[in-house]
Amino acid sequence: MIPRYSRPEMTQIWEPANKFRIWFEIEAHACDALAELGVIPKAAAKAVWEKGNKPYTDARIARIDEIELETKHDMIAFLTELAEHVGEEGRFVHQGMTSSDVLDTCLAVQMAQAADILLDNLDELLAALKVRAEETKYMACIGRSHGIHAEPTTMGLKFARFYAEFKRSKERLQAARKDIATCAISGAIGTFANIDPAVEEYVAEKLGLTPEPISTQVIPRDRHAHFFTTLGIIASSMENIATEIRHLQRTEVREAQEYFAPGQKGSSAMPHKRNPILTENLTGMARIVRMAVTPALENVALWHERDISHSSVERMIGPDATITLNFALKRLIGTVAKLVVYPDNMMNQLNNFGGIHDAQRVLLFLTQNNVSRETAYKIVQRNAMLVWKSFGIDPDNPDSTPELNAIEQGATEHANRLFYFLSHDEDLKAALDVKDLKRLLDEDSISYHTKRVDVIFQRVFG
Amino acid sequence: MIPRYSRPEMTQIWEPANKFRIWFEIEAHACDALAELGVIPKAAAKAVWEKGNKPYTDARIARIDEIELETKHDMIAFLTELAEHVGEEGRFVHQGMTSSDVLDTCLAVQMAQAADILLDNLDELLAALKVRAEETKYMACIGRSHGIHAEPTTMGLKFARFYAEFKRSKERLQAARKDIATCAISGAIGTFANIDPAVEEYVAEKLGLTPEPISTQVIPRDRHAHFFTTLGIIASSMENIATEIRHLQRTEVREAQEYFAPGQKGSSAMPHKRNPILTENLTGMARIVRMAVTPALENVALWHERDISHSSVERMIGPDATITLNFALKRLIGTVAKLVVYPDNMMNQLNNFGGIHDAQRVLLFLTQNNVSRETAYKIVQRNAMLVWKSFGIDPDNPDSTPELNAIEQGATEHANRLFYFLSHDEDLKAALDVKDLKRLLDEDSISYHTKRVDVIFQRVFG
Amino acid sequence: MIPRYSRPEMTQIWEPANKFRIWFEIEAHACDALAELGVIPKAAAKAVWEKGNKPYTDARIARIDEIELETKHDMIAFLTELAEHVGEEGRFVHQGMTSSDVLDTCLAVQMAQAADILLDNLDELLAALKVRAEETKYMACIGRSHGIHAEPTTMGLKFARFYAEFKRSKERLQAARKDIATCAISGAIGTFANIDPAVEEYVAEKLGLTPEPISTQVIPRDRHAHFFTTLGIIASSMENIATEIRHLQRTEVREAQEYFAPGQKGSSAMPHKRNPILTENLTGMARIVRMAVTPALENVALWHERDISHSSVERMIGPDATITLNFALKRLIGTVAKLVVYPDNMMNQLNNFGGIHDAQRVLLFLTQNNVSRETAYKIVQRNAMLVWKSFGIDPDNPDSTPELNAIEQGATEHANRLFYFLSHDEDLKAALDVKDLKRLLDEDSISYHTKRVDVIFQRVFG
Amino acid sequence: MIPRYSRPEMTQIWEPANKFRIWFEIEAHACDALAELGVIPKAAAKAVWEKGNKPYTDARIARIDEIELETKHDMIAFLTELAEHVGEEGRFVHQGMTSSDVLDTCLAVQMAQAADILLDNLDELLAALKVRAEETKYMACIGRSHGIHAEPTTMGLKFARFYAEFKRSKERLQAARKDIATCAISGAIGTFANIDPAVEEYVAEKLGLTPEPISTQVIPRDRHAHFFTTLGIIASSMENIATEIRHLQRTEVREAQEYFAPGQKGSSAMPHKRNPILTENLTGMARIVRMAVTPALENVALWHERDISHSSVERMIGPDATITLNFALKRLIGTVAKLVVYPDNMMNQLNNFGGIHDAQRVLLFLTQNNVSRETAYKIVQRNAMLVWKSFGIDPDNPDSTPELNAIEQGATEHANRLFYFLSHDEDLKAALDVKDLKRLLDEDSISYHTKRVDVIFQRVFG
Repeated sequence: MIPRYSRPEMTQIWEPANKFRIWFEIEAHACDALAELGVIPKAAAKAVWEKGNKPYTDARIARIDEIELETKHDMIAFLTELAEHVGEEGRFVHQGMTSSDVLDTCLAVQMAQAADILLDNLDELLAALKVRAEETKYMACIGRSHGIHAEPTTMGLKFARFYAEFKRSKERLQAARKDIATCAISGAIGTFANIDPAVEEYVAEKLGLTPEPISTQVIPRDRHAHFFTTLGIIASSMENIATEIRHLQRTEVREAQEYFAPGQKGSSAMPHKRNPILTENLTGMARIVRMAVTPALENVALWHERDISHSSVERMIGPDATITLNFALKRLIGTVAKLVVYPDNMMNQLNNFGGIHDAQRVLLFLTQNNVSRETAYKIVQRNAMLVWKSFGIDPDNPDSTPELNAIEQGATEHANRLFYFLSHDEDLKAALDVKDLKRLLDEDSISYHTKRVDVIFQRVFG
Repeated sequence: MIPRYSRPEMTQIWEPANKFRIWFEIEAHACDALAELGVIPKAAAKAVWEKGNKPYTDARIARIDEIELETKHDMIAFLTELAEHVGEEGRFVHQGMTSSDVLDTCLAVQMAQAADILLDNLDELLAALKVRAEETKYMACIGRSHGIHAEPTTMGLKFARFYAEFKRSKERLQAARKDIATCAISGAIGTFANIDPAVEEYVAEKLGLTPEPISTQVIPRDRHAHFFTTLGIIASSMENIATEIRHLQRTEVREAQEYFAPGQKGSSAMPHKRNPILTENLTGMARIVRMAVTPALENVALWHERDISHSSVERMIGPDATITLNFALKRLIGTVAKLVVYPDNMMNQLNNFGGIHDAQRVLLFLTQNNVSRETAYKIVQRNAMLVWKSFGIDPDNPDSTPELNAIEQGATEHANRLFYFLSHDEDLKAALDVKDLKRLLDEDSISYHTKRVDVIFQRVFG
Repeated sequence: MIPRYSRPEMTQIWEPANKFRIWFEIEAHACDALAELGVIPKAAAKAVWEKGNKPYTDARIARIDEIELETKHDMIAFLTELAEHVGEEGRFVHQGMTSSDVLDTCLAVQMAQAADILLDNLDELLAALKVRAEETKYMACIGRSHGIHAEPTTMGLKFARFYAEFKRSKERLQAARKDIATCAISGAIGTFANIDPAVEEYVAEKLGLTPEPISTQVIPRDRHAHFFTTLGIIASSMENIATEIRHLQRTEVREAQEYFAPGQKGSSAMPHKRNPILTENLTGMARIVRMAVTPALENVALWHERDISHSSVERMIGPDATITLNFALKRLIGTVAKLVVYPDNMMNQLNNFGGIHDAQRVLLFLTQNNVSRETAYKIVQRNAMLVWKSFGIDPDNPDSTPELNAIEQGATEHANRLFYFLSHDEDLKAALDVKDLKRLLDEDSISYHTKRVDVIFQRVFG
Repeated sequence: MIPRYSRPEMTQIWEPANKFRIWFEIEAHACDALAELGVIPKAAAKAVWEKGNKPYTDARIARIDEIELETKHDMIAFLTELAEHVGEEGRFVHQGMTSSDVLDTCLAVQMAQAADILLDNLDELLAALKVRAEETKYMACIGRSHGIHAEPTTMGLKFARFYAEFKRSKERLQAARKDIATCAISGAIGTFANIDPAVEEYVAEKLGLTPEPISTQVIPRDRHAHFFTTLGIIASSMENIATEIRHLQRTEVREAQEYFAPGQKGSSAMPHKRNPILTENLTGMARIVRMAVTPALENVALWHERDISHSSVERMIGPDATITLNFALKRLIGTVAKLVVYPDNMMNQLNNFGGIHDAQRVLLFLTQNNVSRETAYKIVQRNAMLVWKSFGIDPDNPDSTPELNAIEQGATEHANRLFYFLSHDEDLKAALDVKDLKRLLDEDSISYHTKRVDVIFQRVFG
């Protein structure tokens, strides 16, 4: 975690004050349950709440740290400090429990709290994506596969697919949250020998957790692995949309641009530049969040009933992955909400290549008019290449601008060069009446390609 | 994938014959739907099924490979070969579709098939774990945290916790299977411009898949990431149980041992050894399966509507991760089912240290008898250390075997050395009547520690 | 490893015939050394070479597999089969050695063989990059940071930087090769109790390896980790150049294009497309090679003197990482060597934006003429934005094509719109004489930006 | 980075004060070089040093942060604040440079500083390992493969192998340090168009760096990847030794123990325990350091001449990996230096199994006495199994303690049970004279197994 990429709402979850507060609640609720069972005096439980239920101020935290320096054991330090407040009856606290009961249950609460914030972030992101999708539902732009112009799509479909992707991840995170929100108070080695399972059930209920069916002093780490792999998937989807925006903002594409605040400077050396720095930054943060995945998986295999190798890892990745993802999602929400889109430029890009994006439409038309797939393919590819050539692009003779013959030269005066070349193709003319082809291509190409947008939106947004 | 760690049931999913078979089914079902919509002649769809519905023999596969060598495009090679069987009407196949429609839907089918096998494997593993758990439910052994003897538990609880862990992963895999079992037939860029969504719905239903709500020529890769991260979690749990068995088989522990087949040799150089090679091997295979996680996450961010960077990765990790995990789970099932356990040795280990595992029980007893936590802790720790010393272990004077004074020497003749030392402790005697302590420790320690096994089994197995 | 991405030169290293051949050589050389020491009869060593030194045919390999099925121990199977050829004196083979002596030394030989091929590949790649760098040394194109046009550079500099990067990796691989090329023949637990260190030294020398200073039955795995992390770095550099080519081939950029063979088809659905599929494929293969890194690091920590958890991992990543990287490097070499470049289009891109790439040059000129950095920055940024606006791009009013006032309209008739706007800027005119600025910008911009290409080439190519 | 696992020596490298100090030095040295070249006035360079060369106090840092809030550009904020000190001539600072020149060169300096500390740590660790190796050079203990007793080795050999391993990593880190210690001051896109390469050479020399032969505004990230993969290897070796210690401290093994400070508490619930928490913690920290490897590799492929996706990652992993590794190495040094070893217990473990560790010695003896390998193996394995049985361990009848026949019962009174059983073996007696075997086994077994320790130490320590 670094302050630059942190937000207080998430950071506070991982701060000592929140941690000790949760520890206190676990212990205090456990006292209530133990008192109810007659294991400790009811007066003791009452004293814990009455005398110990105070905020963990910096002074208290400093006192705990001081004790830990001596004992080298954080839980004993915590209990000792608590006893300084509760007094004599402090000795009943933690009866039959082991440190891990408190530590692991606390971590579960913290991860659940973090998950709740991230789920809120995802809701906000979904809302922003939906708004942008609706706004740009029919805003036509060229679709690209392999970075190469393919066929038209709409900006709205781009937003809609990210919406669908993050919606899936929301469900995954809900499942992961459920998976990690368990409470273990089962004592040493998890046998409940020294503590009644009713205590665990009581504390679980009070903290909104599920009792861990079987723990071995620790809550099993496959749960945590599930949590962190889920964050890794969300991070990767974030990289996905960030990559899309970075591409759309390229100088040569300019179909979208991150919002650029007044007063913001682009480059110290090149003042003319407006760079997609937010989405580049999100790309990096996706890598940061994903860092947690491998160690979380390595943490699953502990020695016998438990070892503590997972602990330092979780002290790191617990805060780092959640704080970074929270920051990044908020940044992404803002980026999506304020993303500047350039519909005119989208149309320019779309129309820049002489109607070549209708090549497949022609191909289908030919095969539906009794031309074999092979022949149709050759006809269309041949003429598509002539369109490229008329734009000065001859892949087979790259060393110089291609010389255009008269027919090729003629193409440059036509908007739909694909049709122009096809109408000069002898094989095509032998196969069908060019007028039929003209009728086809006179229809609005954009409408043709976007005619199912409604259906898709219905599927995505219901 | 390497033959050594492969089983035919899983391997065949990834072989060309199965892949082409699925491609054929996608195309043939799509033809039916297209014929129903009137896009292609019904006779064409009929011809595809009648003439094309033949096994993909080695000869057919070789023919496809031959065509691919020329066209450098696998889908075109497949369609060309199919047309050689179907004849004239072959040109109607693949109408309005794009290669990815077939490739991605096929991959979804293959992953679903793989998931089904893995789910069967998990069921078999759960069954084996349950049998062993029931058998060893009350088989007492020492529980260990940090590799250090802690308090008694039972072998049954070990099996039970792995049961619970794999049961969670079964649910995760069911969710991941659902996530990846989608069908996309949406044409170039996924706009359905050239194909009716009804085709996708029809094929999805025929193949037992869900229609992909929004695809962009490709099925979004967050779904695949979810699949592979889930395999990674299962692999890590496999490492967890493998680590446990490796520890139990250590020479000094010998509480369990992998089954050693007649005729099997342990070591070419050291004939006396019986090594936990299966579980060491499973540990390595866990690493292999986990390898798929990071590239699967890196595959999520594609350029614009699609690029093909994910493809080579999936050709590798699709087979590798599923085949290895299938092999490993089967090996694990056998290992669990045949694991030799040594209850006598467990009891020896348990009783090897003079009753020291009851230290906490004494601690609780003291605090419940008005001794402060701090004092109680000191008393118990002090005497626990004396127990160690009586066994010749003095952590504070490690350089030589400790000299024992008369009292310490006396301890060596007592089974419960902890009680022996406590009964000589002045502070303790000042605090309570040693007879009460004796009464406590005369009760069966094992029963004390295992008294909740039933409750836990009830939670785990219902 | 999958056949699609494999080349025989590398594949054969990992095949049984090569492995058993190396095993044989290790054993046979060891026999010579043992005979020299008088541990075994000289006749035995002679017999091993005379009767055992035959190719490992499929028949021999099948026989070994058959024996292994019974003994479940590959080394014993190998020795048994060898004894079937050598006869009576076969019993002297492997004296005092342990399986790992042979297995680990063999792996070292295989990794060294693999490294040699990869080093050759890198040499070939470096040669190709150098040729292309020289060819395109002064071929001007726009440099881009953040995907945004920045200042001119040359295509040659692009090739040169990849040359420098792979040259560094060549040195890294040489170091890693040295690191893994060690020979361990130290017997059980590595103590040399049962075998003289002279045997190890002799075999090492014969196989071109270094004796492992201290082994513990196994060669320490930090060496292997070094090898695989090095492959991971090379793979990442491969992704780097692949990403560059994919960007240059984008429809909107078209500055370079992968060579497209006659007869090759681009897209089954969209015949007009020429996609950068080789470099997309290389991007995926980079991920595949990198998969080996994490398990190789996890393999370093073995239990006590050795466990076998590393073995299955290495059976997988040894072949996979080297075979895939070899295939990928050869593909990259071809891609680089045959890459089609479009210098005219590079110049078009460069000149597409009214000279805006000279913005920093103006900025420097202003600051060198007594304008403060702050003021200079504001002047240049302001006018750079006007240039964008004159191209119809107004980031601050994205919703529609900006209305141009008279001055802005006038710009559209100037090639160097940046100068045009600057010469209308009152603050600038107040600060200096516009004629001086004109003189500056009349100089050839390309020459200005490429004037150090020679220096850089000198540094890179010497 | 979290304070718990941080040491000031490393932390300060990554703090703003150090970063800005390095930035200042880069800029100030660059001014000197620019002045020398006549690009800026010598007075300006002088002013920068005279007025700007002040510590970066909290107040200065706060001022920079304040400016950054407005400009959203850290380098401009830095330069603006610097100009507030330098005055009018501040405008000459950063002439022709780009932010990355400063940022990347600064990162190189910081990584080199970090590497220097880590190299010191490794030296200290090597020294500690050497001391312990010498101390325990002939301290015999059982060697274990697969966690199973194999043959004797010495504690000194354990320390020696870790010494050799970390020595290799020291050389790797030296190479990586060299790789990342480069200086780039090449201006926008790295063409040196706006700045003379002499500036870079001058600054490089002043800062102890090498000039980057070819940069593209950024220093290529394969260098950084090399740095972080090297840290990953060191971390894995750390996990290796930590795993060894954790095993040696197991209750059943007790051959070594982490030093336990007076006043330290082991377990809040189980006061008798002394846990290997330092090495478990180091195991976790190894995972933390390794987290940096994958994102560092992902950072290599940047878009065109640069993008900023690497930046956030490096802000995280730069400090995290180096601070954690520094902390961990220091902890490891202390752990090694103070590790308590138990030679008596080592001997007990060694002798616990009736001389079975000499099984291979017997095997060799038999084969050298004309018994075939196969027969010898069977004889030795059979009798080794009888030894186990006499200890109550019958792998083939695990369900109960084996019944011993008279001969087996007789074994329990012999220290060398292996010899006892062999001397009753009819096949063995048929093959050789038992007296010869007795002579062999009467020799000191430990001396036999440790006779090459000197040779190995010579190789490792020279």
